[in-house]
Amino acid sequence: MTAYTDTSLSTGLRGVLDGRWAATRDEVRRHIDDAGLVPRAGLSLPEYRARVLELMREMVPMGFPAQGFSSADGPGDPGAAVTAIETLGYGDLSLMVKAGVQWGLFGGAIENLGTARHHEEYRRGLIDLDVLGCFAMTETGHGSNVQALETTATYLPETEEFEIHSPTPSSRKDYIGGAAEHARYAAVFAQLVTAGPGEEPHSRGVHCFVVPLRDADGADLPGVVTSDCGYKGGLPGVDNGRIAFDRVRVPRTALLDRYAGVAADGTYSSPIESDNRRFFTMLGTLIRGRVTVGAAGGAAGRLALTLAVKYALHRRQFSGPGDGGELLLLDYRTHQRRLLPLVARAYAFALAQNEVVEELHEIQTRDPDDVDPGVLRRLEAKAAGIKSGHTALASRAAIEARTACGGAGYLAENRLSLIRDDLDVFTTFEGDNLVMAQLAAKQLLTDYAAEVDGLDAGGWVRFVAGMAREVTAEKTGIRQLVQTLLDDSDETPGKSALTRPDTQLALFRGREDHLVRTAAARMRRAADDDVDAFEVFASTQDHLVKAGEAHIERIVLESMQNAIVRLDAGSPVRAALEDVRDLFVYSALEADLGWFLMHRFVSVERAKAIRRGVNELCGRVRPIAGDLVDAFGIPAVALDVPMLTDASSTV
Amino acid sequence: MTAYTDTSLSTGLRGVLDGRWAATRDEVRRHIDDAGLVPRAGLSLPEYRARVLELMREMVPMGFPAQGFSSADGPGDPGAAVTAIETLGYGDLSLMVKAGVQWGLFGGAIENLGTARHHEEYRRGLIDLDVLGCFAMTETGHGSNVQALETTATYLPETEEFEIHSPTPSSRKDYIGGAAEHARYAAVFAQLVTAGPGEEPHSRGVHCFVVPLRDADGADLPGVVTSDCGYKGGLPGVDNGRIAFDRVRVPRTALLDRYAGVAADGTYSSPIESDNRRFFTMLGTLIRGRVTVGAAGGAAGRLALTLAVKYALHRRQFSGPGDGGELLLLDYRTHQRRLLPLVARAYAFALAQNEVVEELHEIQTRDPDDVDPGVLRRLEAKAAGIKSGHTALASRAAIEARTACGGAGYLAENRLSLIRDDLDVFTTFEGDNLVMAQLAAKQLLTDYAAEVDGLDAGGWVRFVAGMAREVTAEKTGIRQLVQTLLDDSDETPGKSALTRPDTQLALFRGREDHLVRTAAARMRRAADDDVDAFEVFASTQDHLVKAGEAHIERIVLESMQNAIVRLDAGSPVRAALEDVRDLFVYSALEADLGWFLMHRFVSVERAKAIRRGVNELCGRVRPIAGDLVDAFGIPAVALDVPMLTDASSTV
Repeated sequence: MTAYTDTSLSTGLRGVLDGRWAATRDEVRRHIDDAGLVPRAGLSLPEYRARVLELMREMVPMGFPAQGFSSADGPGDPGAAVTAIETLGYGDLSLMVKAGVQWGLFGGAIENLGTARHHEEYRRGLIDLDVLGCFAMTETGHGSNVQALETTATYLPETEEFEIHSPTPSSRKDYIGGAAEHARYAAVFAQLVTAGPGEEPHSRGVHCFVVPLRDADGADLPGVVTSDCGYKGGLPGVDNGRIAFDRVRVPRTALLDRYAGVAADGTYSSPIESDNRRFFTMLGTLIRGRVTVGAAGGAAGRLALTLAVKYALHRRQFSGPGDGGELLLLDYRTHQRRLLPLVARAYAFALAQNEVVEELHEIQTRDPDDVDPGVLRRLEAKAAGIKSGHTALASRAAIEARTACGGAGYLAENRLSLIRDDLDVFTTFEGDNLVMAQLAAKQLLTDYAAEVDGLDAGGWVRFVAGMAREVTAEKTGIRQLVQTLLDDSDETPGKSALTRPDTQLALFRGREDHLVRTAAARMRRAADDDVDAFEVFASTQDHLVKAGEAHIERIVLESMQNAIVRLDAGSPVRAALEDVRDLFVYSALEADLGWFLMHRFVSVERAKAIRRGVNELCGRVRPIAGDLVDAFGIPAVALDVPMLTDASSTV
Repeated sequence: MTAYTDTSLSTGLRGVLDGRWAATRDEVRRHIDDAGLVPRAGLSLPEYRARVLELMREMVPMGFPAQGFSSADGPGDPGAAVTAIETLGYGDLSLMVKAGVQWGLFGGAIENLGTARHHEEYRRGLIDLDVLGCFAMTETGHGSNVQALETTATYLPETEEFEIHSPTPSSRKDYIGGAAEHARYAAVFAQLVTAGPGEEPHSRGVHCFVVPLRDADGADLPGVVTSDCGYKGGLPGVDNGRIAFDRVRVPRTALLDRYAGVAADGTYSSPIESDNRRFFTMLGTLIRGRVTVGAAGGAAGRLALTLAVKYALHRRQFSGPGDGGELLLLDYRTHQRRLLPLVARAYAFALAQNEVVEELHEIQTRDPDDVDPGVLRRLEAKAAGIKSGHTALASRAAIEARTACGGAGYLAENRLSLIRDDLDVFTTFEGDNLVMAQLAAKQLLTDYAAEVDGLDAGGWVRFVAGMAREVTAEKTGIRQLVQTLLDDSDETPGKSALTRPDTQLALFRGREDHLVRTAAARMRRAADDDVDAFEVFASTQDHLVKAGEAHIERIVLESMQNAIVRLDAGSPVRAALEDVRDLFVYSALEADLGWFLMHRFVSVERAKAIRRGVNELCGRVRPIAGDLVDAFGIPAVALDVPMLTDASSTV
């Protein structure tokens, strides 16, 4: 038992959480306080939208929007750019999303899919907000399935133009942030149709084009019809809208042509031969949006948890022992169980997220030709997984935090309901979480092979079945190690091998390994039996999702463990983080106890010890709960809510 | 395998779900359609509040507000009154809550705690809305712990008045629906302080008083300070507010004196001697509010599920087998698993809720003196449990429905986010769900003994410890039955004993029994060991909550089974309901599989069969998913949303 007497505990923890871009975090924190960046209730849509645009303009001089882009001076500082937007999650998510759309998505498309010409034309303006853009990928009929987009960009050699067109109602661009009001330009994803000399025109797959939407007065340009998505379940400061194109002409140079070009005569060329490979390479360069959404969602989840924990340390209810005063909410076990495992999980994901941002930074500051495609592919899978797990956690945390604050939590003045509303869609955009978890599992099953890109469900199953023999043959050591744990009957977390990081990792790895192996085996069997491959896919989909989720928890635990081993053994900060890690692991095991029992990874006795362990760890962490949330470094203005200062607590 | 070819399946199911007050339901459904009662986005608070008040006035002529009250003609029709408000859950929850506050809570206080004088003075007016009231129970510092309310009502014999006073900031009435704007009167819960001749003034516990708040122009009366809770996480049409009283005088007759009176000289008298017993008897008469909130929340949850299921039957995504067209969302297993178990659970809770309403109706239409206090007490526990389970389900269903509809689900025009927001606080008000689950378990542990009312945590633990020997000695037969199931290795739900209702009930009962027995044993051991009783309570709180939840699922299954056995064996309606019941049971077992395995109620093989069973049952129910939600009888206007008619589906 470590005594948590060090007054600098929260400072120490904060150093660990803040990581490499601590200075950027602090700068944005100060800005949140100075500018009063908190979500508001009761503004009209036009008011909120105008406010957010104004707030974005105030951020330009801070410099980090520019850090997201390379320049004559070098590759910029993508890690700082992502971290700045992440930290806006402690402020107002409307601003975070709007900034993310402009600098991350629209800017990212120009930066990563465009060439020198586009950089010269748009980069300065989009950083300074003279060029307001949007990212027009999703269509009314097509969200996760980007390859099925219907919008066409047909090359017309006679005028050297592309004709951007929405051929069907379902091809309308939808939910596009910025499209309702502010965007003057759109990065439009569309099927590129062209014919070289002697060819029939046909689609070369989805490409991206810069298309002007509005004139200087904000009126739709000829052929462009924008409309407004109106009120949403949150994010009132983001002007989501729709765009339909009626044969809109743009010059040949509107194609962002880093990965493919169209010559004046219509000849299509690309350094990447395979349409699929090219498409997924292009998508892969846009990974920063997914990383940012996971990071910022996570930050907002930490804010929600902090509000709830601080309320639970302020509000009393029912009588306690002895003196007759009422107990603090956080002294109730059910309340501890509601909040503290989420705080522990928030630590784990924050550390894993930091690792993703660092890896992204490394890749995006290197010469693209020096980046190993395999490394990029692994990062894509990791970013997808962390996005899914982190935003799911954040959304759950916001819902639980609201509930844990009762009626006070429901009042907009205390902001939890606003955070919950804003966060909700984070589980959907930049990749639906269910699709992301499957993506992580699929990459794993196919060992990150690029050959599977663009395969339909059936083709993918056949591919996996082909590989499955090898996958199944591997990996037996871990399983062995796990089995030996069954005999260990120590029960208290203080003594148990379950607080040993290698044991924890072995359990998480063992589960993942088992799920991946059995998924592969199911596909192989199905292929052997010549069952319809799509049927196999449909019937193993939940299996895949579970494998993805197990994978995510494993890599998160590894990240956390990586962060812990860098600290001095025996230091209070390390001791606290070890308890937090144990609570994360125990509560994750408890949440999936059925699976672990069913697959004989834990014995019944061990399972009971896990349940008790969660309780004990909640009790252990309870005295430092305030320090744990203080370490998130939430700006003061974000915590300045009536419920934390009012008279709801009578001693 | 039953073929679901009967075209009247949804009609038949609807008859079962609609139950005894089907005519009332239909009348309110028509009204929802005629009046366009759907939640709106983008109205200002004043606009929404005014709209809802106007909508309430339109409902008066429908008659059901009056049915909630007794009259010269008899005891009214409480079941119809509750069912009418429940059905508003298919319309706009702001209206439902506002109506529930006026007719159910304020009206219920006058009706059940008042005497002839109050009935004559207020009944007609509160039905017709000439007398707008609110229910001023909760204080800033006191929610679930009603006995700790601080507001005082001090009797002044010299003027034969009560002085209503808020002595501290935490005693301010808070979150009170109607208090911000419309209410002219409040039913105020306060500590009654009086002294008979020769006594010192002291509190007789919490009583209810009718206190005028505002004059005819809506201005606060002298000594009354109301304020506005402003924007909330939902329910924008309900004007929640706060009330502080500065020595406000009301006549002696303002006391609702059915259970206690104060004579002119200050002498306090009551037919119920024990302060605690009297307090809980008074609270018990207000049970209708809790029943109504559970029912209406459940209805809104069904609406959310219907929107999501219909969207999943409309929207296609990614390619399916064979022809290359995209698959319907509901053809994906993960999507089935997301929605269909919730639909099954919604059926189970709807049927259990109907039973609660019928039992309430029976009790409230009888002469109060003929009502067995034990029966009332059981109904209170049941209403608390169903309220907790039903609103938790509804809130979860709304969240899941939003997510399952992706970006479309986030747009206010499709209403899922509005329903989610409005529903959120249903888990908190009329009894926080965690407290309600504990209440259900505590009643069970003490065998519904009235002696425990008002005991603090420690006293309660000692009481249970005293009873525990008996409780533990009972109930062994069920456990025996369950054990024999372990040997049964049939695996498909079609053959397995797990689809036998007696087996299902035995598992649910066995779990409940085990949790109750072990909770009692823990308390007895602790009492034997002379551990601090409060510590025992704190450390068994999560155990109690789990016992409560197990109890709720058991009584819900019983209700469902009761409804099923009344149907013709072999009829398509019965066959469908049996599948739905199985899906409810299998998914409930799966959700708690860790517990069932850990306590050896199911074997590992059986556990795997349960997981597969959920998949198989989802597949079985998939073809009738549309019928299942059609049977909810959602009004057309509530389903008239763009996402169900637009072009998001391309075939």
